[in-house]
Amino acid sequence: MASDEVLIQTAISSWEQVIKRVGTLCLSCSAEQLLVEVAPGKNRISYLWGHLTAVNDAMFSVLRLGERLHLELDAVFIAQPDRSVPLPTSTEIAKCWEDVHTELLSRFKTLSSKEWLERHGNVSPEEFEPNPTRNRLAVLLGRTNHASYHFGQMMLAKPKAP
Amino acid sequence: MASDEVLIQTAISSWEQVIKRVGTLCLSCSAEQLLVEVAPGKNRISYLWGHLTAVNDAMFSVLRLGERLHLELDAVFIAQPDRSVPLPTSTEIAKCWEDVHTELLSRFKTLSSKEWLERHGNVSPEEFEPNPTRNRLAVLLGRTNHASYHFGQMMLAKPKAP
Repeated sequence: MASDEVLIQTAISSWEQVIKRVGTLCLSCSAEQLLVEVAPGKNRISYLWGHLTAVNDAMFSVLRLGERLHLELDAVFIAQPDRSVPLPTSTEIAKCWEDVHTELLSRFKTLSSKEWLERHGNVSPEEFEPNPTRNRLAVLLGRTNHASYHFGQMMLAKPKAP
Repeated sequence: MASDEVLIQTAISSWEQVIKRVGTLCLSCSAEQLLVEVAPGKNRISYLWGHLTAVNDAMFSVLRLGERLHLELDAVFIAQPDRSVPLPTSTEIAKCWEDVHTELLSRFKTLSSKEWLERHGNVSPEEFEPNPTRNRLAVLLGRTNHASYHFGQMMLAKPKAP
């Protein structure tokens, strides 16, 4: 493998690792456990799970990788804070989570290292020119950090093993 | 800049961004605010700050970049959970945080992209051979995720603006 391909593969592995941890935690929770707040008055695990699904679904647009799969999630999980509107069931969130992350990973694998270095969809060519680190890889790393951030919160409410 | 250098620079920028956020949050807290728990019965901000300092200080060894600066932190922030032993003052933690991250960043900048792809110090040549993603870059990304994970927790206890 060429060195820049190993660099990209390392970043994708880091993403996969975090996404897998979030999925494993959420799928191991009962519907009741998913409704536990991560701290008093803060978001519930279920809301954070849907929030990560919605934010990651938007990566299709930001990375210019095609149409989003579940635009409907934004109204519940991005436009509104938790407890504003009823949440989808855990089965529905789980399905969206699975759809989005399976499809994202398969699209990631189609990009060459050169394409990972192209500008991302939220930056103009004029802004990109002096700052070539505002590329697709920066979005992947940023979203990996974002998922880690909320995973740390979810872990505070992780149900104890019986 | 060659493409593999831009890839590495993107990863270092992601690290810098997270480290800066943690530092800004912790330095903006009073000594009293640093002793707030992120959730009932969980770690205090101050403990997490020292924990991240200790774990990141260990990157000098894992990345084979020379001697660690503050080995003494491990006894308090890694070997023991919060509330086991008295914590250093916030001024002491802040100084270690600054030392470690200034020095790490300057060492990061001395590594070529080829060197980032060399195996990290916790993997043997035999384990590395079939899995070239167990390289120094993987450590950088892993520690960035680890800092994001605890930053998400700290943010739950972030003091409200007056």
